[in-house]
Amino acid sequence: MLKRKKPLIFVTNDDGIQAKGLSELIKGIRSWGEIVVIAPDRMRSGMSSAITSSLPIRLHLKKKEEDLTLYSCTGTPVDCVKLGVNEILERKPDLVISGINHGSNSAICVIYSGTVGAALEACILGIPSLAISLTSYSSDDFTQAVKYGKWVAEKILENGLPQGRTLNLNVPPIQKVKGLKICTQTKGYWAKEFQKAEDPAGKPVYWLTGAFVNDEPDNEQSDEWALSQGYAALVPLQIDMTAYPLVHTLKAWEC
Amino acid sequence: MLKRKKPLIFVTNDDGIQAKGLSELIKGIRSWGEIVVIAPDRMRSGMSSAITSSLPIRLHLKKKEEDLTLYSCTGTPVDCVKLGVNEILERKPDLVISGINHGSNSAICVIYSGTVGAALEACILGIPSLAISLTSYSSDDFTQAVKYGKWVAEKILENGLPQGRTLNLNVPPIQKVKGLKICTQTKGYWAKEFQKAEDPAGKPVYWLTGAFVNDEPDNEQSDEWALSQGYAALVPLQIDMTAYPLVHTLKAWEC
Repeated sequence: MLKRKKPLIFVTNDDGIQAKGLSELIKGIRSWGEIVVIAPDRMRSGMSSAITSSLPIRLHLKKKEEDLTLYSCTGTPVDCVKLGVNEILERKPDLVISGINHGSNSAICVIYSGTVGAALEACILGIPSLAISLTSYSSDDFTQAVKYGKWVAEKILENGLPQGRTLNLNVPPIQKVKGLKICTQTKGYWAKEFQKAEDPAGKPVYWLTGAFVNDEPDNEQSDEWALSQGYAALVPLQIDMTAYPLVHTLKAWEC
Repeated sequence: MLKRKKPLIFVTNDDGIQAKGLSELIKGIRSWGEIVVIAPDRMRSGMSSAITSSLPIRLHLKKKEEDLTLYSCTGTPVDCVKLGVNEILERKPDLVISGINHGSNSAICVIYSGTVGAALEACILGIPSLAISLTSYSSDDFTQAVKYGKWVAEKILENGLPQGRTLNLNVPPIQKVKGLKICTQTKGYWAKEFQKAEDPAGKPVYWLTGAFVNDEPDNEQSDEWALSQGYAALVPLQIDMTAYPLVHTLKAWEC
């Protein structure tokens, strides 16, 4: 009987190659198969699905051990996935994991997140993928995020994912997470988004900041609700953004 | 009888404040009401919904005439919308238009596009919005894109848009566009994405390039199909990326 081939797992993030969340994730899945990491050479938070089209992108090999190869990349998280799949990996990976991000990527943050952007990119390229985030900047204990991340990653390796779908996992920064809930993307937005300041020359500058406004605090299906109750929240996402019911309604606008 | 208040229209793009597509759009809607423009100070294509969180953002007033104010901004297209709505405009605009982009934002490009990112951002902030693109880098005749953009913009001003929905308009670079079709986001992806080269020191660099692969060339509902037939293609998009059918299926993964 042929030995089953070891899974090939591609890892990236948006906090950069030096981030603790990345190294904790790698430690957690190190024994699963062949791990190839391409991560940004610096923090690229809030990069969404941005791509680098007007500058050349560089890769630097940082480490090569048995079953573990690490590169840093001057590009965005999405560039990292594209480069890995198009140029570095010899075959399509069995799974792409993006994270573990330091900070929440729940609710509307899926739109802004480079961590989620990388998972969406893998999905576009036909590869099962998962974004993992620890919903706190202050805690740097990734134990529970690694535990739940591994749970979901194993489920994906066993069962696959339907085409055009990826998964977004957020884990609260508490010692004992209660369990995993499958959720929807919480409706809401960021308010009071800027802090106005002056540079040393007295010229005005704006710093992005703000507070999340939850438009459906009582929706027990939403990821914000699950997180607030001490659960890890897993939201299935799709890359087709078409608002199908409107396609019909808007027919009256054709000309 | 009270005079109806002039509409307030906010305009941005991702090609930058100097782009012809932006000035042609402004010319086309100049008489409609009060126009406020905040656009990136340089080309920011492929920026998706990226935000600037680690650097201060600057605004520069470029022009102030009756009913027309223009600022350039050091941030991304999404930053431009956030700054406009949070800091510059005295009230919520009646409409946000992003464009006219020079190059296609059909199919999966909605995920990477800064033009679409800005329209999505307005939608997140509860403002009716529209992204407009001319599907060619070589043609710079924006006449038809302005014509169809105005058609759709007027429909939005008359009828509004449902919450959480925005519109993505692509117009082909032909002299006589046949009409407007309401479409779905074409399924597909970009292949052969990099050109490997060497810098002057002989070190390898990667340039993003590639070709779009259409996974559903016969789908007459898709935006790529409409464009290929000489129609302008309007796709309604939604900011909720939840893959709802999967929420049910994945319940078995809860723990």
